[in-house]
Amino acid sequence: GLQPHPNECDYVLVGNTKWKKQQQTFIEALREKGFSLTEIEESDKCFYGIRAPDSMLDTYQYLMNDEIIFERTRIRVTDFVLNKTIDSKKERLTDLLRKNVFETAFPLHQKTQQDHLTEKWARWTALYKSQPIDLVKNYLGEKAALYFLWLGWYTYMLIPAAMVGIVVFLYGLAFFDKSPLIKEVCEANTTIMCPLCDTHCSFWKLSDTCMYAKVTNLFDNEGTVFFAIFMALWATIFLELWKRHRAREACHWKLYNWDKEEEDLVLEIVNNPQVMPEKFQHSYISSIIVMFLVSVMIVIFIGLSLGLVVFRVFATVVLSESEWKPLKENANTVAVMLGAVVHYLTITIMTKVNRWVAIFLCKIERNPFFEDKECSFTVKMFTFQFFTLFSSLFYVAFFLGRINGHPKEYVKIAQQWRLEECHPSGCMTDLFIQMAIIMILKQTLSNIVEFLSPWVKMKFNSIKYHSEKNKDGEIDNWLRNYYLNNVSYFSVFNEFLEMVIQYSFTTIFVAAFPLAPFLALINNIFEIRLDAIKMTRLERRLVPLKTNNIGIWLQVLEGIGVLAVICNGLVIGITSDFIPRLVYKYRFGPCAYSNATDIDCMVGYVENSLSTVNLEHLNPKHLQNNSDFVNLTYCRYRDYRSEEDFTLTAQFWEIFAARFAFVLLFEHVAVVIKFIAAWFVPDVPMQVKNIDLNHKFANLKKRLCMMPHRTTSL
Amino acid sequence: GLQPHPNECDYVLVGNTKWKKQQQTFIEALREKGFSLTEIEESDKCFYGIRAPDSMLDTYQYLMNDEIIFERTRIRVTDFVLNKTIDSKKERLTDLLRKNVFETAFPLHQKTQQDHLTEKWARWTALYKSQPIDLVKNYLGEKAALYFLWLGWYTYMLIPAAMVGIVVFLYGLAFFDKSPLIKEVCEANTTIMCPLCDTHCSFWKLSDTCMYAKVTNLFDNEGTVFFAIFMALWATIFLELWKRHRAREACHWKLYNWDKEEEDLVLEIVNNPQVMPEKFQHSYISSIIVMFLVSVMIVIFIGLSLGLVVFRVFATVVLSESEWKPLKENANTVAVMLGAVVHYLTITIMTKVNRWVAIFLCKIERNPFFEDKECSFTVKMFTFQFFTLFSSLFYVAFFLGRINGHPKEYVKIAQQWRLEECHPSGCMTDLFIQMAIIMILKQTLSNIVEFLSPWVKMKFNSIKYHSEKNKDGEIDNWLRNYYLNNVSYFSVFNEFLEMVIQYSFTTIFVAAFPLAPFLALINNIFEIRLDAIKMTRLERRLVPLKTNNIGIWLQVLEGIGVLAVICNGLVIGITSDFIPRLVYKYRFGPCAYSNATDIDCMVGYVENSLSTVNLEHLNPKHLQNNSDFVNLTYCRYRDYRSEEDFTLTAQFWEIFAARFAFVLLFEHVAVVIKFIAAWFVPDVPMQVKNIDLNHKFANLKKRLCMMPHRTTSL
Repeated sequence: GLQPHPNECDYVLVGNTKWKKQQQTFIEALREKGFSLTEIEESDKCFYGIRAPDSMLDTYQYLMNDEIIFERTRIRVTDFVLNKTIDSKKERLTDLLRKNVFETAFPLHQKTQQDHLTEKWARWTALYKSQPIDLVKNYLGEKAALYFLWLGWYTYMLIPAAMVGIVVFLYGLAFFDKSPLIKEVCEANTTIMCPLCDTHCSFWKLSDTCMYAKVTNLFDNEGTVFFAIFMALWATIFLELWKRHRAREACHWKLYNWDKEEEDLVLEIVNNPQVMPEKFQHSYISSIIVMFLVSVMIVIFIGLSLGLVVFRVFATVVLSESEWKPLKENANTVAVMLGAVVHYLTITIMTKVNRWVAIFLCKIERNPFFEDKECSFTVKMFTFQFFTLFSSLFYVAFFLGRINGHPKEYVKIAQQWRLEECHPSGCMTDLFIQMAIIMILKQTLSNIVEFLSPWVKMKFNSIKYHSEKNKDGEIDNWLRNYYLNNVSYFSVFNEFLEMVIQYSFTTIFVAAFPLAPFLALINNIFEIRLDAIKMTRLERRLVPLKTNNIGIWLQVLEGIGVLAVICNGLVIGITSDFIPRLVYKYRFGPCAYSNATDIDCMVGYVENSLSTVNLEHLNPKHLQNNSDFVNLTYCRYRDYRSEEDFTLTAQFWEIFAARFAFVLLFEHVAVVIKFIAAWFVPDVPMQVKNIDLNHKFANLKKRLCMMPHRTTSL
Repeated sequence: GLQPHPNECDYVLVGNTKWKKQQQTFIEALREKGFSLTEIEESDKCFYGIRAPDSMLDTYQYLMNDEIIFERTRIRVTDFVLNKTIDSKKERLTDLLRKNVFETAFPLHQKTQQDHLTEKWARWTALYKSQPIDLVKNYLGEKAALYFLWLGWYTYMLIPAAMVGIVVFLYGLAFFDKSPLIKEVCEANTTIMCPLCDTHCSFWKLSDTCMYAKVTNLFDNEGTVFFAIFMALWATIFLELWKRHRAREACHWKLYNWDKEEEDLVLEIVNNPQVMPEKFQHSYISSIIVMFLVSVMIVIFIGLSLGLVVFRVFATVVLSESEWKPLKENANTVAVMLGAVVHYLTITIMTKVNRWVAIFLCKIERNPFFEDKECSFTVKMFTFQFFTLFSSLFYVAFFLGRINGHPKEYVKIAQQWRLEECHPSGCMTDLFIQMAIIMILKQTLSNIVEFLSPWVKMKFNSIKYHSEKNKDGEIDNWLRNYYLNNVSYFSVFNEFLEMVIQYSFTTIFVAAFPLAPFLALINNIFEIRLDAIKMTRLERRLVPLKTNNIGIWLQVLEGIGVLAVICNGLVIGITSDFIPRLVYKYRFGPCAYSNATDIDCMVGYVENSLSTVNLEHLNPKHLQNNSDFVNLTYCRYRDYRSEEDFTLTAQFWEIFAARFAFVLLFEHVAVVIKFIAAWFVPDVPMQVKNIDLNHKFANLKKRLCMMPHRTTSL
């Protein structure tokens, strides 16, 4: 039923009539290969409908042992041959497209299948339904179908993670008011804290941050530690089960033992039986150059995120010295907002730069095979995007407020401007705010843009299309396709990249934001339909590419899993207050030296975690706007330093040792758990292995029957 | 030329004549399958020479697309069918061997090839020659050949490691006398140290350990840190290059794309064309049981090594209370020697227990495929042996002397016996001594035993053989083989296990013993010839098994690489004095607060690293044999504790934090380097990939020529 009408075209080339002569050279080369062509001129455009010769497809079918040639195979073979064809002027289609001889080239949507897919899958009201992956595979090809299969699986696996995340969040909420730590902060209205910045910050009461302390406690409690371990395990199990899921689907598609290399060779032979296969190439010199350039890029990313830090510090100072009073008073907030805008701009610009550099690096490597090129591009692009998006998060998580020196001698940029301090209620809050902004704002915004931009274009083109309406059958269909949005080989890649970046956010800093899986879940439920609608209805038809796995993305996801273990360990060990609290409880608090059971072990923690500085050591600037606190002789700051010489106390070093010990322990335990989980769940279901085994066995038996001069009886 | 004489036998079964009737049942079953048989009775033994029917081998050849059937293939097919044959009493060969109906079954050595191999390879005088791997493959099969290929490669790769190790050792030797630390120790004849044990130890001068301090400095300097990083990198590059080496060899053997599963199916069909293939099975329940039992075993290993610790402590006390004076005076040394004997006995017994338990666990898993069984057995056996051999090293490296409490309150077993202290010159010395003993003694001893035991048996049997000499051609050859040592499927496995354990020693604690690679190199040069002589001349012929990789051992080696990074990081961070010295240099020493360049930054380190305890806090027992030091009021011990309340000082915590920070840093840097190295060196040489590609291409072209009704011209 899926065989197209025998006279239908597989592919359409469009070019301006003024280039007709040049177009004909290429068209002639196609005719020589046996393609049948239909030419239609329409206003100033020339449309060439082409259809691959049956002999070509027969050869493919014979060499691949396929039973039927599906429509997706026709389009794929046509696309391959089209891109490999060299005309008498030694030009390829890509050259001609670049020279504008041809405007565009695309395969055609099939109205009935398109409608069927829309009905079953590509509409918002199908949200609650499972995806008809086989239909998607038949129409958009295995590559796109595997993306949707993966996305569906990821979304499905997010359900338990989101649920546990919500439970952890609720656990935090349950102790919202009851934690003795919060009580201590809220009642500390005699604890006067040192100013957080140089110029216009004043002294403040610790009790002012009561509300923030409550919010911070939501995300910085024992539940978070549990959740971080849970998510490290989740990431492993997710990948293990995905491997099984993929194997099952590949087996169902009869592609379990499919060999990409062989497929490529067959396509080459189909295109030109006299062809010599390309050779694998590898050069250690280009590897070194690539490694060097990637390092340079990474240094640039780190430099950019440090630049952003300096920018915020600088902006705060400049703004607070402005003449306009509202600006002056809210200098800090405005600087943070300005910083966010600059950050967003940097990301937008760097995304384009990254793509360009990644393509350039792939050119240096000169891989002759598309598969390898794609791998190499994927890894580079992901690395660059990862650093672009995460480097400032790493700064917030592990450096912000930790390298600021002490009240007598603050670390200053250009010996003038103090570095930013952590949020008054703790460094974890900064990380939490950053994560919340990224997860909620960035996802929502980028989804809207991603959907609206093709939708608007489509609507706009639709008007053009309807203005040219009353045409005959074939050209009407071609025009309808022509006025849809363009797609490229990158389409599925871009979707994958977006989702893998989201996966990184969901797993890498999940300790700071347990609601991340929940937000990702909500987003993905819509993302599936959004991508489906885009690919089926708003864009021209994808060339259906064949594959049986998600390729290098699997390794990328495994890498993210490792990073997630390291980062979550570090967030809990270094960023959160989990370790200082533990150390206080067992070494310095009231329980350390007494066996009484009725005392709260955390009493006095807040007081203990603050150091004291005599005002005479402070910068005199601070004392200027000290109107509220008249008789102040000292102020407090978060650190473990001696009052006399500002050296770090033994408690600081003990906490420091405990932090590192925790990170070490966390990482090794997580690695062992990951290892056991990977061993426990076989990568390939036994059912798939047995089907494969039976298949091989059947083939051998078939060959045995054909054996000449067999003497023993069967 | 390798084709055997057409009437020669592939395999010989031997049984006592009194079981002849039962033997005939099985022989009949073989005859039915078409085997040709030669029966010879010799004294009370009955010899059955069997030869596989040509039709069987033709089928194999046809299904495998082999060009020639080599002798090794004949033997392998015969062995497979022999073991699969079920006689009319439903008994297999294994059952009959167990019941003693047959005494043994073995393939025959070929005198000419054996001599050729001896000439080229299997003799001590060929030490300096490279191995003729193809000859080995042709005679002993791919599996044994891959073992020798790997062992040769490992030996070859040990050369740079050994050289760097020697350089590091010489670097230590160059500063043997000059280090200011050693000077400080040697001149510290007024520094009186506290007794190291409870009962009969007395006070001692620090300067007594002058000589030991020099030796320790040989292995505990900056060079060691460099060498540990070098070896982590070496292990990665070794594996990467091995993968390439293997791929090249597999390609050369035309086994690059060989499929084990298909081979097994073909053998099954050759044995019985009506066979149904076995099914893959997997049970989560048996996985859980296996996991539980493995954990129990690991707990037992840890318990045993703790038991050994307690045994030594206990023995020391018991011996020092003995009546016999020489024993009493050398109680400590005798206890250590007793401990070593008990340790050796434990290892010997546990090796047998481990094999038994590993086989039992494999039975629980019920894998129907030999390949899977072997994998599972390998991993278990290696894990068990690893824990058996390494658990006491782990104790020495990371716990010995660190959990002993302080002079006022020593940690005591059963509230009576103090734990062992580290060697007076530092904890690294203990680890170094242990490593040196194992590398030198164990290897030499086990090699001698490994070689002598079959050699003696062979010589002994040889006498028997010669006493029966004057026989006719065939039976003479059979008898000659019969009187060689028996081999089993485990032969190659045992050699591999031994070498992989050695590889573990060479990489995991290399930081404590930079000469390990050198010793391993020397050992391996002999080991290759030893194994060669054993397999070619002292033992019956191995069934030549076919494979194209070393299987699960690759993963085991990768696991060892990871463990090596962790352990070397820990040895340098925790066991050695590298970190305390660094911390002293930059934070507490004379350079910390002065910018003078002419002072030695390490002056005062030894003094700083000792704590003081007033004698009144000591156990009165110690003061009994205090004849040498009359006016002593305090003694010193290695630790960072306050003199008043024995709490750990800030410096201790700072060093502790630095130790963990170092381990974290070391591990992550090593992982990144490993990752980059793995990326930089492609697993498969491009040459091999291209040969494979051309092979696939040629196959496709061949098929294309056979395509029926081709319309387009070639």
